[in-house]
Amino acid sequence: MANPTAAMLVIGDEILSGRTRDSNMHYLAGELTRHGIRLQEVRVVADDHVTIVAAVNALRVGYDHLFTSGGIGPTHDDITAEAIAAAFGVAISQRADALALLAAHYDRAGLEFNDARKQMARIPDGASLIDNPVSTAPGFTLGNVHVMAGVPNIFQAMVASVMPTLTGGEPLLSQSLRVNCGEGEVAGPFGVLAAAFPDLSMGSYPFIHNGAHGTNLVIRGTDAAQIDAAMTQLAALFP
Amino acid sequence: MANPTAAMLVIGDEILSGRTRDSNMHYLAGELTRHGIRLQEVRVVADDHVTIVAAVNALRVGYDHLFTSGGIGPTHDDITAEAIAAAFGVAISQRADALALLAAHYDRAGLEFNDARKQMARIPDGASLIDNPVSTAPGFTLGNVHVMAGVPNIFQAMVASVMPTLTGGEPLLSQSLRVNCGEGEVAGPFGVLAAAFPDLSMGSYPFIHNGAHGTNLVIRGTDAAQIDAAMTQLAALFP
Repeated sequence: MANPTAAMLVIGDEILSGRTRDSNMHYLAGELTRHGIRLQEVRVVADDHVTIVAAVNALRVGYDHLFTSGGIGPTHDDITAEAIAAAFGVAISQRADALALLAAHYDRAGLEFNDARKQMARIPDGASLIDNPVSTAPGFTLGNVHVMAGVPNIFQAMVASVMPTLTGGEPLLSQSLRVNCGEGEVAGPFGVLAAAFPDLSMGSYPFIHNGAHGTNLVIRGTDAAQIDAAMTQLAALFP
Repeated sequence: MANPTAAMLVIGDEILSGRTRDSNMHYLAGELTRHGIRLQEVRVVADDHVTIVAAVNALRVGYDHLFTSGGIGPTHDDITAEAIAAAFGVAISQRADALALLAAHYDRAGLEFNDARKQMARIPDGASLIDNPVSTAPGFTLGNVHVMAGVPNIFQAMVASVMPTLTGGEPLLSQSLRVNCGEGEVAGPFGVLAAAFPDLSMGSYPFIHNGAHGTNLVIRGTDAAQIDAAMTQLAALFP
Protein backbone atom coordinates (compact mmCIF):
# COMPACT_ATOMS: atom_id res chain seq x y z
CA MET A 1 0.00 0.00 0.00
CA ALA A 2 1.36 3.39 -0.91
CA ASN A 3 1.93 5.83 1.91
CA PRO A 4 -0.66 8.59 2.40
CA THR A 5 0.40 12.00 1.08
CA ALA A 6 0.14 15.40 2.69
CA ALA A 7 0.63 19.09 2.01
CA MET A 8 1.02 22.02 4.40
CA LEU A 9 -0.18 25.60 4.05
CA VAL A 10 1.55 28.18 6.26
CA ILE A 11 -0.56 31.34 6.50
CA GLY A 12 0.95 34.62 7.63
CA ASP A 13 2.36 37.96 6.44
CA GLU A 14 4.91 37.79 9.26
CA ILE A 15 6.67 34.79 7.70
CA LEU A 16 6.85 36.38 4.25
CA SER A 17 8.12 39.72 5.58
CA GLY A 18 10.97 37.98 7.39
CA ARG A 19 9.75 39.16 10.80
CA THR A 20 9.08 35.62 12.04
CA ARG A 21 11.04 32.45 11.29
CA ASP A 22 8.60 29.60 10.66
CA SER A 23 9.35 26.50 12.70
CA ASN A 24 6.10 24.61 12.19
CA MET A 25 7.04 23.23 8.78
CA HIS A 26 10.11 21.45 10.12
CA TYR A 27 8.18 20.10 13.11
CA LEU A 28 5.29 18.79 11.01
CA ALA A 29 7.67 17.27 8.44
CA GLY A 30 9.34 15.19 11.15
CA GLU A 31 6.04 14.08 12.71
CA LEU A 32 4.56 13.05 9.37
CA THR A 33 7.66 11.08 8.42
CA ARG A 34 7.46 9.20 11.73
CA HIS A 35 3.81 8.37 10.97
CA GLY A 36 4.53 7.14 7.46
CA ILE A 37 2.79 10.07 5.78
CA ARG A 38 4.71 11.71 2.93
CA LEU A 39 4.80 15.50 3.06
CA GLN A 40 5.04 16.42 -0.63
CA GLU A 41 4.44 20.16 -0.80
CA VAL A 42 4.43 23.21 1.44
CA ARG A 43 3.13 26.65 0.52
CA VAL A 44 3.46 29.87 2.48
CA VAL A 45 0.91 32.56 1.65
CA ALA A 46 -0.11 35.97 2.99
CA ASP A 47 -3.15 36.88 5.10
CA ASP A 48 -5.37 37.34 2.05
CA HIS A 49 -8.79 35.68 1.72
CA VAL A 50 -8.74 34.96 -2.01
CA THR A 51 -5.17 33.64 -1.87
CA ILE A 52 -5.90 31.32 1.05
CA VAL A 53 -9.08 29.94 -0.54
CA ALA A 54 -7.25 29.20 -3.81
CA ALA A 55 -4.33 27.50 -2.05
CA VAL A 56 -6.63 25.40 0.17
CA ASN A 57 -8.61 24.18 -2.81
CA ALA A 58 -5.49 23.41 -4.86
CA LEU A 59 -3.86 21.44 -2.05
CA ARG A 60 -6.82 19.59 -0.54
CA VAL A 61 -7.62 17.90 -3.84
CA GLY A 62 -3.99 17.13 -4.65
CA TYR A 63 -3.08 15.29 -1.44
CA ASP A 64 -4.64 12.94 1.10
CA HIS A 65 -4.24 15.50 3.89
CA LEU A 66 -3.74 19.25 4.14
CA PHE A 67 -2.42 20.82 7.35
CA THR A 68 -2.65 24.58 7.83
CA SER A 69 -0.95 26.78 10.42
CA GLY A 70 -1.80 30.34 11.40
CA GLY A 71 -4.65 32.81 11.37
CA ILE A 72 -7.15 31.31 13.82
CA GLY A 73 -6.86 33.83 16.67
CA PRO A 74 -9.23 36.64 17.73
CA THR A 75 -7.87 39.61 15.73
CA HIS A 76 -8.85 41.18 12.38
CA ASP A 77 -5.95 39.45 10.58
CA ASP A 78 -7.15 35.99 11.67
CA ILE A 79 -9.09 35.00 8.58
CA THR A 80 -8.25 31.35 8.13
CA ALA A 81 -11.50 29.79 9.45
CA GLU A 82 -13.56 32.05 7.16
CA ALA A 83 -11.37 31.10 4.20
CA ILE A 84 -11.67 27.36 4.91
CA ALA A 85 -15.46 27.65 5.04
CA ALA A 86 -15.41 29.55 1.73
CA ALA A 87 -13.10 26.97 0.17
CA PHE A 88 -15.56 24.19 1.05
CA GLY A 89 -18.64 26.31 0.31
CA VAL A 90 -20.10 25.76 3.79
CA ALA A 91 -21.48 28.16 6.40
CA ILE A 92 -19.52 29.26 9.46
CA SER A 93 -20.84 30.34 12.84
CA GLN A 94 -19.94 30.53 16.52
CA ARG A 95 -20.55 26.95 17.53
CA ALA A 96 -21.99 25.92 20.89
CA ASP A 97 -19.34 23.31 21.71
CA ALA A 98 -16.47 25.69 20.99
CA LEU A 99 -18.20 28.54 22.85
CA ALA A 100 -18.65 26.31 25.89
CA LEU A 101 -14.97 25.34 25.93
CA LEU A 102 -13.85 28.97 25.67
CA ALA A 103 -16.40 30.29 28.20
CA ALA A 104 -15.18 27.79 30.79
CA HIS A 105 -11.54 28.67 30.04
CA TYR A 106 -11.99 32.44 30.46
CA ASP A 107 -14.14 31.89 33.52
CA ARG A 108 -11.32 29.90 35.14
CA ALA A 109 -8.81 32.57 34.11
CA GLY A 110 -11.00 35.40 35.44
CA LEU A 111 -10.94 37.14 32.04
CA GLU A 112 -13.86 38.64 30.17
CA PHE A 113 -15.21 36.39 27.40
CA ASN A 114 -15.56 39.33 25.02
CA ASP A 115 -16.64 39.48 21.38
CA ALA A 116 -13.08 39.13 20.07
CA ARG A 117 -12.55 35.95 22.06
CA LYS A 118 -15.91 34.59 20.88
CA GLN A 119 -14.57 34.88 17.31
CA MET A 120 -12.36 31.93 18.14
CA ALA A 121 -15.51 29.78 18.39
CA ARG A 122 -16.28 30.36 14.71
CA ILE A 123 -16.11 26.88 13.16
CA PRO A 124 -17.23 25.87 9.65
CA ASP A 125 -20.29 23.60 9.48
CA GLY A 126 -19.38 19.93 9.51
CA ALA A 127 -15.95 20.34 11.10
CA SER A 128 -14.75 18.44 14.15
CA LEU A 129 -12.74 20.28 16.80
CA ILE A 130 -9.01 19.75 17.39
CA ASP A 131 -8.11 19.79 21.06
CA ASN A 132 -5.85 22.64 22.25
CA PRO A 133 -4.50 21.75 25.70
CA VAL A 134 -2.30 24.89 25.76
CA SER A 135 -4.77 27.74 25.38
CA THR A 136 -8.15 26.04 24.75
CA ALA A 137 -9.17 27.85 21.52
CA PRO A 138 -9.66 24.83 19.26
CA GLY A 139 -8.44 24.01 15.79
CA PHE A 140 -10.67 21.97 13.53
CA THR A 141 -10.70 19.26 10.88
CA LEU A 142 -13.01 19.69 7.89
CA GLY A 143 -12.84 16.89 5.35
CA ASN A 144 -9.13 16.22 4.85
CA VAL A 145 -8.04 19.68 6.04
CA HIS A 146 -6.59 20.11 9.52
CA VAL A 147 -6.60 23.75 10.65
CA MET A 148 -4.20 24.66 13.43
CA ALA A 149 -2.72 27.66 15.23
CA GLY A 150 0.54 29.29 14.18
CA VAL A 151 2.06 29.78 17.64
CA PRO A 152 4.60 26.93 17.73
CA ASN A 153 3.77 25.34 21.08
CA ILE A 154 0.05 25.42 20.30
CA PHE A 155 0.67 24.09 16.78
CA GLN A 156 2.66 21.21 18.22
CA ALA A 157 -0.03 20.38 20.78
CA MET A 158 -2.67 20.35 18.02
CA VAL A 159 -0.51 18.08 15.84
CA ALA A 160 -0.31 15.72 18.81
CA SER A 161 -4.14 15.81 19.03
CA VAL A 162 -4.61 15.10 15.32
CA MET A 163 -1.96 12.46 14.63
CA PRO A 164 -3.64 9.55 16.42
CA THR A 165 -6.77 10.10 14.30
CA LEU A 166 -4.91 9.59 11.01
CA THR A 167 -4.12 6.35 9.24
CA GLY A 168 -0.38 6.26 8.70
CA GLY A 169 1.59 4.18 6.25
CA GLU A 170 4.72 2.10 6.44
CA PRO A 171 7.31 4.08 8.39
CA LEU A 172 9.63 6.08 6.17
CA LEU A 173 13.12 4.88 7.06
CA SER A 174 16.47 6.47 6.37
CA GLN A 175 20.14 5.72 6.92
CA SER A 176 23.04 7.98 6.20
CA LEU A 177 26.78 7.82 5.68
CA ARG A 178 29.07 10.77 6.26
CA VAL A 179 32.07 10.92 3.95
CA ASN A 180 35.03 13.26 4.17
CA CYS A 181 35.04 14.48 0.60
CA GLY A 182 32.98 16.82 -1.55
CA GLU A 183 29.94 15.94 -3.62
CA GLY A 184 32.02 16.05 -6.79
CA GLU A 185 34.00 12.99 -5.63
CA VAL A 186 30.99 10.87 -4.68
CA ALA A 187 28.56 11.89 -7.42
CA GLY A 188 29.57 9.28 -10.00
CA PRO A 189 29.43 6.05 -7.94
CA PHE A 190 26.54 7.34 -5.79
CA GLY A 191 24.48 7.98 -8.90
CA VAL A 192 25.15 4.45 -10.17
CA LEU A 193 24.05 3.05 -6.82
CA ALA A 194 20.86 5.17 -6.84
CA ALA A 195 19.99 3.85 -10.30
CA ALA A 196 20.42 0.26 -9.05
CA PHE A 197 17.80 0.78 -6.30
CA PRO A 198 14.87 2.51 -8.02
CA ASP A 199 12.54 1.96 -5.03
CA LEU A 200 14.84 3.91 -2.72
CA SER A 201 15.45 7.63 -2.67
CA MET A 202 19.08 8.73 -2.34
CA GLY A 203 20.24 12.24 -1.61
CA SER A 204 23.58 13.90 -0.98
CA TYR A 205 24.04 16.94 1.26
CA PRO A 206 27.38 18.72 1.19
CA PHE A 207 28.78 20.62 4.14
CA ILE A 208 31.95 22.44 5.10
CA HIS A 209 33.35 21.71 8.55
CA ASN A 210 36.51 23.45 9.79
CA GLY A 211 37.30 24.36 6.21
CA ALA A 212 37.11 20.77 4.92
CA HIS A 213 34.46 19.54 2.47
CA GLY A 214 32.26 16.62 3.47
CA THR A 215 29.01 15.08 2.27
CA ASN A 216 26.16 13.29 4.02
CA LEU A 217 24.77 10.53 1.83
CA VAL A 218 21.20 9.61 2.76
CA ILE A 219 19.17 6.60 1.64
CA ARG A 220 15.41 6.66 2.28
CA GLY A 221 12.62 4.16 1.72
CA THR A 222 10.12 1.86 3.40
CA ASP A 223 11.90 -1.50 2.87
CA ALA A 224 14.47 -1.93 5.65
CA ALA A 225 16.16 -4.91 3.96
CA GLN A 226 16.65 -2.94 0.73
CA ILE A 227 18.05 0.01 2.63
CA ASP A 228 20.46 -2.30 4.45
CA ALA A 229 21.59 -3.83 1.16
CA ALA A 230 22.15 -0.39 -0.38
CA MET A 231 23.99 0.87 2.70
CA THR A 232 26.32 -2.15 2.56
CA GLN A 233 27.21 -1.33 -1.04
CA LEU A 234 27.55 2.37 -0.19
CA ALA A 235 29.95 1.65 2.67
CA ALA A 236 32.05 -0.50 0.34
CA LEU A 237 32.22 2.38 -2.19
CA PHE A 238 33.48 4.84 0.43
CA PRO A 239 35.43 2.84 2.99
CA MET B 1 4.71 52.87 -7.92
CA ALA B 2 3.75 49.50 -6.50
CA ASN B 3 6.53 47.42 -5.03
CA PRO B 4 7.83 44.55 -7.17
CA THR B 5 6.58 41.12 -6.11
CA ALA B 6 8.46 37.87 -5.65
CA ALA B 7 7.98 34.17 -4.96
CA MET B 8 10.43 31.55 -3.76
CA LEU B 9 10.67 27.88 -4.65
CA VAL B 10 12.58 25.67 -2.21
CA ILE B 11 13.58 22.39 -3.88
CA GLY B 12 14.55 19.37 -1.83
CA ASP B 13 13.33 16.05 -0.42
CA GLU B 14 15.42 16.69 2.70
CA ILE B 15 13.27 19.66 3.73
CA LEU B 16 9.99 17.75 3.27
CA SER B 17 11.24 14.68 5.14
CA GLY B 18 12.19 16.79 8.16
CA ARG B 19 15.87 15.86 7.84
CA THR B 20 16.95 19.43 7.16
CA ARG B 21 15.51 22.66 8.56
CA ASP B 22 15.27 25.23 5.77
CA SER B 23 16.82 28.56 6.65
CA ASN B 24 16.96 30.14 3.21
CA MET B 25 13.32 31.25 3.21
CA HIS B 26 13.73 33.40 6.30
CA TYR B 27 16.98 34.86 5.00
CA LEU B 28 15.56 35.74 1.58
CA ALA B 29 12.38 37.19 3.14
CA GLY B 30 14.43 39.64 5.18
CA GLU B 31 16.65 40.63 2.25
CA LEU B 32 13.69 41.22 -0.07
CA THR B 33 11.87 43.31 2.52
CA ARG B 34 14.98 45.49 2.90
CA HIS B 35 15.05 45.97 -0.88
CA GLY B 36 11.39 46.88 -1.13
CA ILE B 37 10.40 43.67 -2.92
CA ARG B 38 7.31 41.93 -1.56
CA LEU B 39 7.71 38.19 -1.05
CA GLN B 40 4.17 36.92 -1.58
CA GLU B 41 4.43 33.15 -1.84
CA VAL B 42 6.85 30.34 -1.04
CA ARG B 43 6.54 26.74 -2.17
CA VAL B 44 8.59 23.77 -1.07
CA VAL B 45 8.62 20.81 -3.46
CA ALA B 46 10.41 17.48 -3.79
CA ASP B 47 13.26 16.56 -6.16
CA ASP B 48 10.87 15.63 -8.96
CA HIS B 49 11.25 16.97 -12.50
CA VAL B 50 7.56 17.32 -13.40
CA THR B 51 6.74 18.92 -10.06
CA ILE B 52 9.56 21.46 -10.30
CA VAL B 53 8.68 22.42 -13.89
CA ALA B 54 5.03 22.98 -12.95
CA ALA B 55 5.89 25.06 -9.90
CA VAL B 56 8.42 27.19 -11.79
CA ASN B 57 5.91 27.95 -14.53
CA ALA B 58 3.13 28.75 -12.06
CA LEU B 59 5.30 31.11 -10.03
CA ARG B 60 7.33 32.87 -12.73
CA VAL B 61 4.19 34.15 -14.43
CA GLY B 62 2.49 35.11 -11.17
CA TYR B 63 5.22 37.33 -9.73
CA ASP B 64 7.88 39.79 -10.90
CA HIS B 65 10.68 37.55 -9.62
CA LEU B 66 11.11 33.90 -8.69
CA PHE B 67 14.02 32.77 -6.53
CA THR B 68 14.84 29.06 -6.26
CA SER B 69 17.12 27.27 -3.80
CA GLY B 70 18.52 23.78 -4.03
CA GLY B 71 19.37 21.11 -6.58
CA ILE B 72 22.23 22.63 -8.56
CA GLY B 73 25.12 20.43 -7.35
CA PRO B 74 26.91 17.58 -9.15
CA THR B 75 24.89 14.54 -8.00
CA HIS B 76 22.03 12.58 -9.56
CA ASP B 77 19.44 14.33 -7.35
CA ASP B 78 20.51 17.78 -8.60
CA ILE B 79 17.90 18.28 -11.30
CA THR B 80 16.98 21.96 -10.94
CA ALA B 81 18.91 23.38 -13.93
CA GLU B 82 17.38 20.75 -16.24
CA ALA B 83 13.90 21.58 -14.90
CA ILE B 84 14.37 25.33 -15.38
CA ALA B 85 15.42 24.76 -18.99
CA ALA B 86 12.36 22.55 -19.53
CA ALA B 87 10.08 25.14 -17.91
CA PHE B 88 11.32 27.79 -20.35
CA GLY B 89 11.49 25.38 -23.30
CA VAL B 90 15.15 26.15 -23.97
CA ALA B 91 18.20 23.91 -24.46
CA ILE B 92 20.78 23.29 -21.76
CA SER B 93 24.46 22.45 -22.14
CA GLN B 94 27.83 22.69 -20.41
CA ARG B 95 28.67 26.29 -21.12
CA ALA B 96 32.19 27.52 -21.85
CA ASP B 97 32.14 30.40 -19.36
CA ALA B 98 30.96 28.18 -16.50
CA LEU B 99 33.40 25.41 -17.47
CA ALA B 100 36.28 27.89 -17.42
CA LEU B 101 35.35 29.14 -13.92
CA LEU B 102 35.12 25.61 -12.55
CA ALA B 103 38.27 24.34 -14.30
CA ALA B 104 40.30 27.18 -12.77
CA HIS B 105 38.76 26.51 -9.33
CA TYR B 106 39.55 22.78 -9.29
CA ASP B 107 43.00 23.43 -10.73
CA ARG B 108 43.76 25.81 -7.83
CA ALA B 109 42.37 23.25 -5.36
CA GLY B 110 44.40 20.40 -6.89
CA LEU B 111 41.22 18.36 -7.46
CA GLU B 112 40.21 16.46 -10.57
CA PHE B 113 37.68 18.32 -12.74
CA ASN B 114 35.70 15.13 -13.35
CA ASP B 115 32.44 14.54 -15.22
CA ALA B 116 30.29 15.03 -12.10
CA ARG B 117 31.85 18.43 -11.43
CA LYS B 118 31.41 19.39 -15.10
CA GLN B 119 27.66 18.87 -14.59
CA MET B 120 27.69 22.06 -12.55
CA ALA B 121 28.53 23.96 -15.75
CA ARG B 122 25.18 22.97 -17.31
CA ILE B 123 23.37 26.28 -17.84
CA PRO B 124 20.17 26.85 -19.84
CA ASP B 125 20.56 28.84 -23.05
CA GLY B 126 20.07 32.55 -22.53
CA ALA B 127 20.82 32.57 -18.80
CA SER B 128 23.36 34.84 -17.13
CA LEU B 129 25.59 33.44 -14.38
CA ILE B 130 25.21 34.31 -10.69
CA ASP B 131 28.57 34.69 -8.97
CA ASN B 132 29.39 32.17 -6.21
CA PRO B 133 32.34 33.49 -4.20
CA VAL B 134 32.11 30.56 -1.74
CA SER B 135 32.56 27.50 -3.95
CA THR B 136 32.64 28.87 -7.53
CA ALA B 137 29.91 26.68 -9.09
CA PRO B 138 27.58 29.40 -10.38
CA GLY B 139 23.86 29.96 -10.07
CA PHE B 140 22.05 31.60 -12.98
CA THR B 141 19.28 34.00 -13.88
CA LEU B 142 16.97 33.11 -16.75
CA GLY B 143 14.24 35.64 -17.48
CA ASN B 144 12.84 36.56 -14.06
CA VAL B 145 14.00 33.32 -12.38
CA HIS B 146 17.07 33.36 -10.13
CA VAL B 147 18.44 29.86 -9.53
CA MET B 148 20.63 29.42 -6.45
CA ALA B 149 22.26 26.73 -4.32
CA GLY B 150 20.59 25.27 -1.24
CA VAL B 151 23.61 25.24 1.08
CA PRO B 152 22.86 28.28 3.26
CA ASN B 153 26.18 30.14 3.09
CA ILE B 154 26.32 29.68 -0.69
CA PHE B 155 22.66 30.70 -1.04
CA GLN B 156 23.35 33.86 0.93
CA ALA B 157 26.40 34.73 -1.15
CA MET B 158 24.37 34.27 -4.34
CA VAL B 159 21.57 36.48 -2.99
CA ALA B 160 24.20 39.13 -2.35
CA SER B 161 25.35 38.75 -5.98
CA VAL B 162 21.80 39.05 -7.38
CA MET B 163 20.28 41.81 -5.25
CA PRO B 164 22.20 44.75 -6.74
CA THR B 165 20.94 43.74 -10.21
CA LEU B 166 17.26 44.06 -9.20
CA THR B 167 15.11 47.16 -9.20
CA GLY B 168 13.70 47.50 -5.70
CA GLY B 169 10.68 49.46 -4.58
CA GLU B 170 9.96 51.79 -1.71
CA PRO B 171 11.40 50.22 1.44
CA LEU B 172 8.83 48.18 3.37
CA LEU B 173 8.78 49.73 6.83
CA SER B 174 7.43 48.36 10.06
CA GLN B 175 7.03 49.45 13.66
CA SER B 176 5.81 47.37 16.53
CA LEU B 177 4.40 47.77 20.02
CA ARG B 178 4.64 45.08 22.65
CA VAL B 179 1.71 44.94 25.05
CA ASN B 180 1.38 42.88 28.20
CA CYS B 181 -2.00 41.31 27.50
CA GLY B 182 -3.40 38.61 25.27
CA GLU B 183 -4.73 39.05 21.75
CA GLY B 184 -8.29 38.79 23.04
CA GLU B 185 -7.90 42.10 24.91
CA VAL B 186 -6.42 44.05 22.00
CA ALA B 187 -8.39 42.56 19.12
CA GLY B 188 -11.34 44.99 19.23
CA PRO B 189 -9.56 48.37 19.24
CA PHE B 190 -6.69 47.08 17.07
CA GLY B 191 -9.17 45.97 14.42
CA VAL B 192 -10.81 49.39 14.42
CA LEU B 193 -7.41 51.04 13.99
CA ALA B 194 -6.52 48.68 11.12
CA ALA B 195 -9.76 49.58 9.35
CA ALA B 196 -8.93 53.29 9.69
CA PHE B 197 -5.60 52.83 7.85
CA PRO B 198 -6.44 50.71 4.79
CA ASP B 199 -3.03 51.37 3.16
CA LEU B 200 -1.19 49.85 6.12
CA SER B 201 -0.99 46.21 7.09
CA MET B 202 -1.45 45.46 10.79
CA GLY B 203 -0.77 42.14 12.45
CA SER B 204 -0.82 40.82 16.00
CA TYR B 205 1.48 38.07 17.25
CA PRO B 206 0.76 36.54 20.64
CA PHE B 207 3.43 35.09 22.89
CA ILE B 208 3.73 33.62 26.34
CA HIS B 209 6.70 34.80 28.41
CA ASN B 210 7.27 33.46 31.93
CA GLY B 211 3.70 32.24 31.96
CA ALA B 212 2.21 35.65 31.11
CA HIS B 213 0.36 36.43 27.87
CA GLY B 214 1.63 39.24 25.68
CA THR B 215 1.13 40.41 22.11
CA ASN B 216 3.35 42.12 19.57
CA LEU B 217 1.34 44.54 17.45
CA VAL B 218 3.05 45.25 14.12
CA ILE B 219 2.21 47.96 11.59
CA ARG B 220 3.73 47.66 8.10
CA GLY B 221 3.66 49.86 5.01
CA THR B 222 5.70 52.11 2.75
CA ASP B 223 4.51 55.53 4.01
CA ALA B 224 6.56 56.45 7.10
CA ALA B 225 4.28 59.35 8.06
CA GLN B 226 1.19 57.15 7.97
CA ILE B 227 2.92 54.50 10.06
CA ASP B 228 3.94 57.17 12.59
CA ALA B 229 0.36 58.44 12.77
CA ALA B 230 -1.00 54.95 13.30
CA MET B 231 1.64 54.15 15.92
CA THR B 232 0.72 57.31 17.84
CA GLN B 233 -2.92 56.22 17.95
CA LEU B 234 -1.90 52.67 18.84
CA ALA B 235 0.25 53.84 21.75
CA ALA B 236 -2.69 55.91 23.05
CA LEU B 237 -4.95 52.84 22.93
CA PHE B 238 -2.53 50.73 24.98
CA PRO B 239 -0.68 53.13 27.27
